Amino acid sequence: MRTLTVDLAERSYPIYIGSDLLRQAQFFTPHIVGRKVAIVSNTTVAPLYLQQLREALVGYELTEIILPDGESYKNWETLQLIFDALLRDKHDRKTTLIALGGGVVGDMTGFAAACYQRGVNFIQVPTTLLSQVDSSVGGKTGINHPLGKNMVGAFYQPQAVLIDTATLQTLPPRELSAGLAEVIKYGLICDEPFLTWLERHIEQICQLDNPALIETIERSCAAKAQVVSADERESGVRATLNLGHTFGHAIETEQGYGAWLHGEAVSAGTVMALHMSKQLGWLTEQQRDRGIKLLKQAGLPIVPPLSMTAETFLTHMAVDKKNIDGHIRLVLLRNLGEALVTAEYPAEVLHDVLSTDYSTIAASI
Amino acid sequence: MRTLTVDLAERSYPIYIGSDLLRQAQFFTPHIVGRKVAIVSNTTVAPLYLQQLREALVGYELTEIILPDGESYKNWETLQLIFDALLRDKHDRKTTLIALGGGVVGDMTGFAAACYQRGVNFIQVPTTLLSQVDSSVGGKTGINHPLGKNMVGAFYQPQAVLIDTATLQTLPPRELSAGLAEVIKYGLICDEPFLTWLERHIEQICQLDNPALIETIERSCAAKAQVVSADERESGVRATLNLGHTFGHAIETEQGYGAWLHGEAVSAGTVMALHMSKQLGWLTEQQRDRGIKLLKQAGLPIVPPLSMTAETFLTHMAVDKKNIDGHIRLVLLRNLGEALVTAEYPAEVLHDVLSTDYSTIAASI
Repeated sequence: MRTLTVDLAERSYPIYIGSDLLRQAQFFTPHIVGRKVAIVSNTTVAPLYLQQLREALVGYELTEIILPDGESYKNWETLQLIFDALLRDKHDRKTTLIALGGGVVGDMTGFAAACYQRGVNFIQVPTTLLSQVDSSVGGKTGINHPLGKNMVGAFYQPQAVLIDTATLQTLPPRELSAGLAEVIKYGLICDEPFLTWLERHIEQICQLDNPALIETIERSCAAKAQVVSADERESGVRATLNLGHTFGHAIETEQGYGAWLHGEAVSAGTVMALHMSKQLGWLTEQQRDRGIKLLKQAGLPIVPPLSMTAETFLTHMAVDKKNIDGHIRLVLLRNLGEALVTAEYPAEVLHDVLSTDYSTIAASI
Repeated sequence: MRTLTVDLAERSYPIYIGSDLLRQAQFFTPHIVGRKVAIVSNTTVAPLYLQQLREALVGYELTEIILPDGESYKNWETLQLIFDALLRDKHDRKTTLIALGGGVVGDMTGFAAACYQRGVNFIQVPTTLLSQVDSSVGGKTGINHPLGKNMVGAFYQPQAVLIDTATLQTLPPRELSAGLAEVIKYGLICDEPFLTWLERHIEQICQLDNPALIETIERSCAAKAQVVSADERESGVRATLNLGHTFGHAIETEQGYGAWLHGEAVSAGTVMALHMSKQLGWLTEQQRDRGIKLLKQAGLPIVPPLSMTAETFLTHMAVDKKNIDGHIRLVLLRNLGEALVTAEYPAEVLHDVLSTDYSTIAASI
């Protein structure tokens, strides 16, 4: 078992990483103040892991809230199910919410914890690779709006994050790949040695080798924790974590939430960001292709939907949260392992990147 | 014009109090960072004051969001109108929301600001006495849930509060009285000299004498700002601001939001808290009656709805946010000008207080 700390002064919290942590009470009890606990999970994860968690929490008054599964349910109506259950069972400000599931469950549970009675405690138990390496660290919570992803939410930190790598054994391969999109992102934006390590170990990771998984998760969480500690509310460097996301969110929104997995959209978006960085003269073609190849080896899509035109991309990108006074800000790479956020680029380069036929590039990898 | 400061370290902000501030750009521009501003108001206040505010904000890109008026609209569906308009007009993180209206507009606009893209700036322009002396100071924002008032919300501070006493000239007398319930509360919980001052000036205040109004608002805001600065997130002394509110919320919830004004319910609830403090031997009958008389002179109800039994009170009070692990915590007075929060009282005293015929007490005042 390894422990990392996300360093945020009085809001600091530990991340526990290891196999079979879920059934061990010792990781939960130090982070629960009252007698009531509400576990929020979904219809896919609850049948697999809820019983283990119940056993770890013997002695507490439990409320179990099982949400429908999927990004398309990450909305107010589903959030309301959490509030309804908490009020029905008379949970007060000393309650603790536990998010047992992937990023959707974590984001919604965190946002519910941020808002319920203006703020109660919560613990993240992410069960997908994506949520383990990304959304469970950093305190971003929220729901989608019909006009934009994650448009309603809060910065709100958990009391602890508990990552049980055993849960990855039941994860569909497509979702494992989706998580690897964010893992590869950390290498690309701030850790070139990790990128090289990933190139050497990508097969072991895809075969769910436990030591390789733990190393992958720890290095990813450490990268994210470092960036988040430096910039909790995304006023600066934290925005670099959105490599590929501005393009990716446009893909997700246009296709309808859930048609592409978040990590899949980020992968295609990362290919676009790599290509744009190359077009701006910051990456060589070889560097661009190293990134694209690793995404491909991780089982990820590297070509955006053919139906998306430059105009559809631009429409969605105009509402991105990174924009300031209407300029579209993008995360790009100045080098492998070195990202920047900028709105200073020739408009025709962006237009060219949005109009590129990526299937031709993909065919050459 | 007078200026108070709410002292919350990097979240400190000024409160400007005076007549005809609304049309003066100088009070707004230092607190607006971007080019876009969204004014949120309601169908009652907008026709009276929106044009003045528009003139103060010449040069900004304005979005105007006019909500239906009333506590019964303080819910998710109405909040959604704010998010819809912000996204439609492509407001980004540098936008500033301005709440122009009473407590409902302020609470919803503040919560929208707390959640929109995980947090944007906002300015409070409260136009009712209640919101000027209470809800605009302290950062409590939120909406109601069918099972409880203010159950979903956030602690979120504005950039500035601008109190234009000229707006009170158009306020219905019933709403002026409702605001005075909170004013009198400050005297009762922490400022006995202010209570005495109010007893001497209650007629001038009710006749909208401007110097008396400014003094009333300034002393109320100063009292609230002091308590909030000491305890931003209501872990201790801040809870004393809820004198009369636990009983009052039960009245509001049972009668349906909006049937009784918040201040009216607080007034009847304060009478119950005064009576309970007397029954516990902390106040004399004469002290209890001083408080009740002042509420009556302010034009407020001093008898709870006759339809409410001890059981209906208890059902609603069981979900109060101040409760910890199921004990009903109440704000009571140990003396005039000295409040405490406690769950340590004989259950039969509470039951007696919930069953008392207050019309008999009222008749003797």
